[in-house]
Amino acid sequence: MAFEITFLGTGAASPTLSRGLSAAVINVDETLCLIDCGEGTQMQMLRFGIKKDRIRHVFISHLHGDHYFGLVGLLFTWHLHQRKDELHIWGPFTLKEILEIQIKTSVPNLCYPLIFHDLESLPDGVICIEKRFTVSKFPLNHRLSTFGFLVKETGRQGNISKDFIEKYHPDPETIRKIKEGSDYKTNEGIIIPHTDIVTPVRLHSFAWCSDTAYHPPVIEYVTDADVLYHEATFTKDMQWLAEEKGHSTTIDAALIAAQAKVHHLILGHISQRYSDMDEFVNEAKSIFPHTDVAYDGMRIKLRN
Amino acid sequence: MAFEITFLGTGAASPTLSRGLSAAVINVDETLCLIDCGEGTQMQMLRFGIKKDRIRHVFISHLHGDHYFGLVGLLFTWHLHQRKDELHIWGPFTLKEILEIQIKTSVPNLCYPLIFHDLESLPDGVICIEKRFTVSKFPLNHRLSTFGFLVKETGRQGNISKDFIEKYHPDPETIRKIKEGSDYKTNEGIIIPHTDIVTPVRLHSFAWCSDTAYHPPVIEYVTDADVLYHEATFTKDMQWLAEEKGHSTTIDAALIAAQAKVHHLILGHISQRYSDMDEFVNEAKSIFPHTDVAYDGMRIKLRN
Repeated sequence: MAFEITFLGTGAASPTLSRGLSAAVINVDETLCLIDCGEGTQMQMLRFGIKKDRIRHVFISHLHGDHYFGLVGLLFTWHLHQRKDELHIWGPFTLKEILEIQIKTSVPNLCYPLIFHDLESLPDGVICIEKRFTVSKFPLNHRLSTFGFLVKETGRQGNISKDFIEKYHPDPETIRKIKEGSDYKTNEGIIIPHTDIVTPVRLHSFAWCSDTAYHPPVIEYVTDADVLYHEATFTKDMQWLAEEKGHSTTIDAALIAAQAKVHHLILGHISQRYSDMDEFVNEAKSIFPHTDVAYDGMRIKLRN
Repeated sequence: MAFEITFLGTGAASPTLSRGLSAAVINVDETLCLIDCGEGTQMQMLRFGIKKDRIRHVFISHLHGDHYFGLVGLLFTWHLHQRKDELHIWGPFTLKEILEIQIKTSVPNLCYPLIFHDLESLPDGVICIEKRFTVSKFPLNHRLSTFGFLVKETGRQGNISKDFIEKYHPDPETIRKIKEGSDYKTNEGIIIPHTDIVTPVRLHSFAWCSDTAYHPPVIEYVTDADVLYHEATFTKDMQWLAEEKGHSTTIDAALIAAQAKVHHLILGHISQRYSDMDEFVNEAKSIFPHTDVAYDGMRIKLRN
């Protein structure tokens, strides 16, 4: 059991020897989501020990190649490895056409069910509901239709307090009901609210904002996230280029993190022009101290 | 100056930690050809120090993804790096459509001229004539339209013999004419054939046969090649599977090499089920002794 994020590719535009192209895997209690899938993502999965057969959802933020050119190869690897489980792909509409022409050129059909969801026709907010988490989408501000995502766990129950168990010796069925929200009635007819019995749990969340220019409307979607991955393609001296290209600087990312009161900011989609990451991260830290720069293979575990 | 082959990806179907997907670069005096371009090829180029901007031709053998899914990413990297030189892509017709939909989704146009040549509508034999080499194509026998390639150098001239120079003191213009094939007439009117003056040179060649079942018609195209890269997806005990899938075994590859009297056989497109390469290569060596198994990054230099 876990809520764990693994960054597979943290570079921008074209790969380097140290940074692959955009992709991250979010593992919520062994159901995995892949966000973006740049070329080489399946190799990075091998390198960093991702159990790819547990991926149930793939979310593609936008149709710039560094965010999706690795997807079709991954689809075929699953086919060759005789995947059976259904796969949900969430992406801009044209992605379906791009995948289909490549699939039909090679095989009559993939050997597993592939369900495509057109992000452009879905309303913003929760789009995917799983047993242990939901995924929301929201618009970013890039050069073409681009979406951010929030993976938020749901339904994880707190523990019954030891004092209550020792005093009332509830049976398993009663415990289940309390965890689900029922209050408890003592033999004397006194009602004890379940909020007095169950320890509250923090429900974790991870937000993905890449690629985007500085875009304050995302704040309402990512507020209080445990981890915000925000692109920071450039340093602050390149603000003009960031604006021209629809990207963010270190400062832009930090401003969003600060206003959204997230707990941890991870900078990614780093232009290959930068090698001194200390200087890079310090720019953001001047505004939002709990900031780190992503690297390929970086793992963040929010809980066991 | 060189005739050099670098194997970038030597695995089959899906990548492993040790073998990337099909791709090889042939460098003939600093004009480079790329044959096949599986996912991750541009990363392998970085890893193995290929000067990708010198690639002028890309030949795609067939439209199984492990032979071409890396091409569109490479095209965009050239675009981002502001390539100016024209690029020739030689592949099955549908490749054009697959590339175009992905290009137009992202940018109005690539910033360099891209010339597409439909392999299926070209006759077998020489299809590409460069100053220092030609490339021929010929049909292979796989599950869909698939082509082999022969890169053969041309026009490299031999040296004038020292004895001749010392005896007749020819001027530079006369030397040029002799190298181009003219005979020499002495002051006494005696004709000396240029073949008696010029040291003959061996014109090197490299043949690519992947993917294919055992297919003797290729022999006429690859006869006397310095290096034959022939797929050997399976060992001989898997002959039934090789036939079912349209692939070759170690024995099939060695039989082609022996009948074509090539100088060196390189086995590639190795199924990930094999780890003991000694056993693998020995099967082929029993028929064709000068055999090696390709590995990612393997370089063969035929001349300086």
